[in-house]
Amino acid sequence: MNRIITISREFGSGGRELGRRLSDKLGYAYYDHEIISEIVQRTELSEKYVQDVSERRPPIMAFPIHTGRSFYMPQNPAWTQSQMVHQEQHKIIQEVAALSDCIIVGRCADYVLRDRNPYRIFVYADMECKLRRCREREQAARELSDKELQRKIKTVDRRRAQYYEFYTDRDWSDRTNYDLMINTTGRPVKEAAMIVAKLFEE
Amino acid sequence: MNRIITISREFGSGGRELGRRLSDKLGYAYYDHEIISEIVQRTELSEKYVQDVSERRPPIMAFPIHTGRSFYMPQNPAWTQSQMVHQEQHKIIQEVAALSDCIIVGRCADYVLRDRNPYRIFVYADMECKLRRCREREQAARELSDKELQRKIKTVDRRRAQYYEFYTDRDWSDRTNYDLMINTTGRPVKEAAMIVAKLFEE
Repeated sequence: MNRIITISREFGSGGRELGRRLSDKLGYAYYDHEIISEIVQRTELSEKYVQDVSERRPPIMAFPIHTGRSFYMPQNPAWTQSQMVHQEQHKIIQEVAALSDCIIVGRCADYVLRDRNPYRIFVYADMECKLRRCREREQAARELSDKELQRKIKTVDRRRAQYYEFYTDRDWSDRTNYDLMINTTGRPVKEAAMIVAKLFEE
Repeated sequence: MNRIITISREFGSGGRELGRRLSDKLGYAYYDHEIISEIVQRTELSEKYVQDVSERRPPIMAFPIHTGRSFYMPQNPAWTQSQMVHQEQHKIIQEVAALSDCIIVGRCADYVLRDRNPYRIFVYADMECKLRRCREREQAARELSDKELQRKIKTVDRRRAQYYEFYTDRDWSDRTNYDLMINTTGRPVKEAAMIVAKLFEE
């Protein structure tokens, strides 16, 4: 069976960098944004839309109250489309995992691939470190105040947690869902990559 | 400055084994039960007593109600003695950390030595795995039913959490208190030792 590493990560913790470094070191395929591009191709939805919903739970629906024997379930286009993106994503994750050894970032891949026994990593860091990392890698982040950027980081992480919980019925940050949780505060991501690679090097 | 590794661990997760293996691999001094023996020597308390209180918060005190201007603080021998053990433990941890590179298991060592920038590990596993590990290493555990042993494991971990919280004002299992959290479910402790050692090998 192919070897699979899944990486869940707090925003700004260096999880994506860890994935890329591992991919370079081990020669495994790497999937992150690539999954979005594939969904865009298959669904003809806009990249921005797919990016936006691909790690977000569907919008909460308010059902109209029915009386009598009516059990008609109204269609909600936003819900339906977001579910379609999730299903497509789920399918692509299964397909790439079947193709070769790989590293998949986010997208509940740890849960989607649970029958393939992936090595499940969670990457986190303290807020100060995440602020710094965001600013190092993104011009837009450099233009935000500490408070604004902090709010953005918290919002992204809250969405990821809600998305994970919605599709897996598990707590995103619960340690029992992971094999290894790595704190990148004050330590280079290179170091994290080195220790994880050690597990997979032949 | 000496290199220091601290290991917090769920009961039965293999944290102690990890400490020993790391000590063998890296040649660092290893402290676990050794700290209890040292407290026994310095205080002339019984080993059983020291073992019992060394990772337990002091007993909750009920203060008598005073009226008027009395602010007399009653002495509680159980409290005083347990505090003495903790202080001695704290002192010994500081002493051994100043002596040489070392690995210290439990005892809030991560917090006690926070100014020395220790590498802080938390080891955990799921209940089934902890039951098996306890039985592998201890005859007494083999004589307990699953339910009894589960209760024991939960009690020990609850005490460790309360002890940690009492002396550090932090949550024992909060990931931000650790650099690395390792799940030993279904994976040999040897593997965990290998990856951690990689960080310290020269």
